[in-house]
Amino acid sequence: MKPVRLAILGLGTVGGGALKLLQENAAEIKRRTGREIQITHVGTRRPRPDLELEGIKQSADLLDIVRQPDVDVVVEVMGGIHPAYEIIMEAIKHGKQVVTANKALLAEHGNELFKAAEDNAVQIAYEAAVAGGIPIIKVIREGLAANHIEWLAGIINGTGNFILTEMREKGRAFDDVLKEAQELGYAEADPTFDVEGIDAAHKLTILASCAFGIPLQFDKVYTEGISKITAQDVKYAEELGFRIKHLGIARRAEKGIELRVHPTLIPDEQLIANVNGVKNAVLVQANAVGPTLYYGAGAGAGPTASAVVADVIDIVRDISYTEDGAGTIPQLAFEALTNMPILSREEMTTGYYIRLNAEDQTGVLADVTTILSRAGISIDAIMQQSRLKDLIPIVILTDPIVESKMDDALAQIQALPAIRGEIVRIRLESLDS
Amino acid sequence: MKPVRLAILGLGTVGGGALKLLQENAAEIKRRTGREIQITHVGTRRPRPDLELEGIKQSADLLDIVRQPDVDVVVEVMGGIHPAYEIIMEAIKHGKQVVTANKALLAEHGNELFKAAEDNAVQIAYEAAVAGGIPIIKVIREGLAANHIEWLAGIINGTGNFILTEMREKGRAFDDVLKEAQELGYAEADPTFDVEGIDAAHKLTILASCAFGIPLQFDKVYTEGISKITAQDVKYAEELGFRIKHLGIARRAEKGIELRVHPTLIPDEQLIANVNGVKNAVLVQANAVGPTLYYGAGAGAGPTASAVVADVIDIVRDISYTEDGAGTIPQLAFEALTNMPILSREEMTTGYYIRLNAEDQTGVLADVTTILSRAGISIDAIMQQSRLKDLIPIVILTDPIVESKMDDALAQIQALPAIRGEIVRIRLESLDS
Repeated sequence: MKPVRLAILGLGTVGGGALKLLQENAAEIKRRTGREIQITHVGTRRPRPDLELEGIKQSADLLDIVRQPDVDVVVEVMGGIHPAYEIIMEAIKHGKQVVTANKALLAEHGNELFKAAEDNAVQIAYEAAVAGGIPIIKVIREGLAANHIEWLAGIINGTGNFILTEMREKGRAFDDVLKEAQELGYAEADPTFDVEGIDAAHKLTILASCAFGIPLQFDKVYTEGISKITAQDVKYAEELGFRIKHLGIARRAEKGIELRVHPTLIPDEQLIANVNGVKNAVLVQANAVGPTLYYGAGAGAGPTASAVVADVIDIVRDISYTEDGAGTIPQLAFEALTNMPILSREEMTTGYYIRLNAEDQTGVLADVTTILSRAGISIDAIMQQSRLKDLIPIVILTDPIVESKMDDALAQIQALPAIRGEIVRIRLESLDS
Repeated sequence: MKPVRLAILGLGTVGGGALKLLQENAAEIKRRTGREIQITHVGTRRPRPDLELEGIKQSADLLDIVRQPDVDVVVEVMGGIHPAYEIIMEAIKHGKQVVTANKALLAEHGNELFKAAEDNAVQIAYEAAVAGGIPIIKVIREGLAANHIEWLAGIINGTGNFILTEMREKGRAFDDVLKEAQELGYAEADPTFDVEGIDAAHKLTILASCAFGIPLQFDKVYTEGISKITAQDVKYAEELGFRIKHLGIARRAEKGIELRVHPTLIPDEQLIANVNGVKNAVLVQANAVGPTLYYGAGAGAGPTASAVVADVIDIVRDISYTEDGAGTIPQLAFEALTNMPILSREEMTTGYYIRLNAEDQTGVLADVTTILSRAGISIDAIMQQSRLKDLIPIVILTDPIVESKMDDALAQIQALPAIRGEIVRIRLESLDS
């Protein structure tokens, strides 16, 4: 069989990594596919003298590259929404298979792109868009295909997990660790995407579509970052047997789907609570298999290239053995997507960690517990901490409750005369199956 | 498209579970495949009045079932080598696709079976044969296909892991926990397959073939059970920051492949060290992605059925979209297998935990360390324990060393006049990437 011809658009960390991986592991990859993969084009503006590019056409005109006849598969690893969107659309119209690592693009414009791919009988493969080198898309689309997936919860932003790990292990403050993460190159100069949960929300959008067969709906993800987490709360959580992780959670509830990204207390004996540093992990609860967990590097040249090239290999196999190369698996795991309602924040149900600062006044505990009890909120644990600057921090853990009820109860508690400062609320999930 | 027709051979825990799962999740599975799956035959001797079998032909003549024209896929979940071997061969000759959960059969006769499948352009799918519901075969064959896999280490026998977990958490003795495992139904009346590592060796054989592209070679796996592990060693290991797990390890070494199943000390901060109870996990070290870990239930009706039905779904997709239904992925991950030498135990390299009981005699430590040093074995830690019945237990951790050298050194130490009883040796792996 003739070689499969590849254009790599973008020669940054990921693109360079994919090129190197295809070159270094070429012999072993050929043993797996039975077919040669030939890089015919790279699209880049900056020269990369460190890469072996002999015999590969280089151009900065990406639209031109995807129209070339000697391209079967376009690997888009340039990032950003524009012009990636236009270039992928053009590639699809020219009948090219597409591999992309672009989570923002898919989360925000995936519905149109997948539709175009279907209309043109090509596929868009996107393993690298979520959780880097962990083959989580394959696991959900194929490995767990026999299951009804109930929920999934993932540490899907390595920068955030690095920050929370450092805060817990060393008692450091958020700002201090963020600065180090930026110096280490984990966090961008503008860290908003990572620490405010936008990056995680992009990935969660894609995971939820594959898990439940719903359209991509990034705008409906409730997103809360980790920038307000304090070393104090990390410490109290630990004392109660919990760790704070920034989780992306997608859950089928009775009335619809919950899509949410927020800091979360989880029991420290849960395996995912022990995923530290920049590593990612996704815990999936499905009706037949029960809980399964997938762990690995969520970013970096090697891990992301691993996922990009795995997609290329899948496509090579599909091109080689199926009639039209459109693949044997529905793009978002289901042949037809279903519209299920996405719940608003107020409709979601979670447990809670609440910290309030009270004046040392008799009766405040009674007032607080009465308010919670009247709202139908059951208390799982309550802990009075040592006095801090004339105030007594009180920590309360609650059982799961619909958020609107918690909003009401907290408004009432906040209004108590003995309560000082803003009440801290962090969600809590047992992650039990 | 016409429904894909299934025969399920064996209606025990796994067969019954697969049947129920196909029935319960039928609507969702059809949303994923776009095609109906119809169970036309079940092969069983015992009636199962608890199952919904209306409209399904039942017979105890399994050879007859696999010859029927209204069968596209044969699901073999009866277990045992014979007559499973003969029945699968007959199914293959009749052009049926095969799904099996039979690790013993594949590990011992897989080479012939896969050859026959290839000759008849059908596939044998076997996700359920290893680590139950964890889609580890798919991960290795496809998800990590871009990588050169360096090694893998797995907790792939739930019974053994349950026993070791109980020993560590509660300080219990091996025999005591084994009895409980039998009462709980985790361990068979004859627990040899589980506790002596034979079951794990079957699974390791299959994993290693997929990871390295080598023929199945069960007879070359070095296998050591956990029945000699004592609560004392579990405790000492813990004090040193290690846990003892029964691991299956496949590793590319310089001169060949190591295939080994044995109790292993691993650092307690490793995620896999925290996999407890009957759960399974596989840690894979690959050159691009680095370490990734896959965790879940390794046995039971639901998890095994999850894997069996995922294989059925893959086959339905292949039958629907490829020319001959033989699948797009090589059965053992590589188009052509390579014969690489499998190392003997003496040629393998591992670290060591050594415990010896010494009389309280000056000079014994010096003698022991001199012997190790002369053999080129570096000591990583040494710990003298509190006196026990007139003897002083000495625990030594070593860096990795080829086993033949350790054999020699231990023979010399054993011969020292101050050493009492048999020296305990347990392998140690850092599992660092």
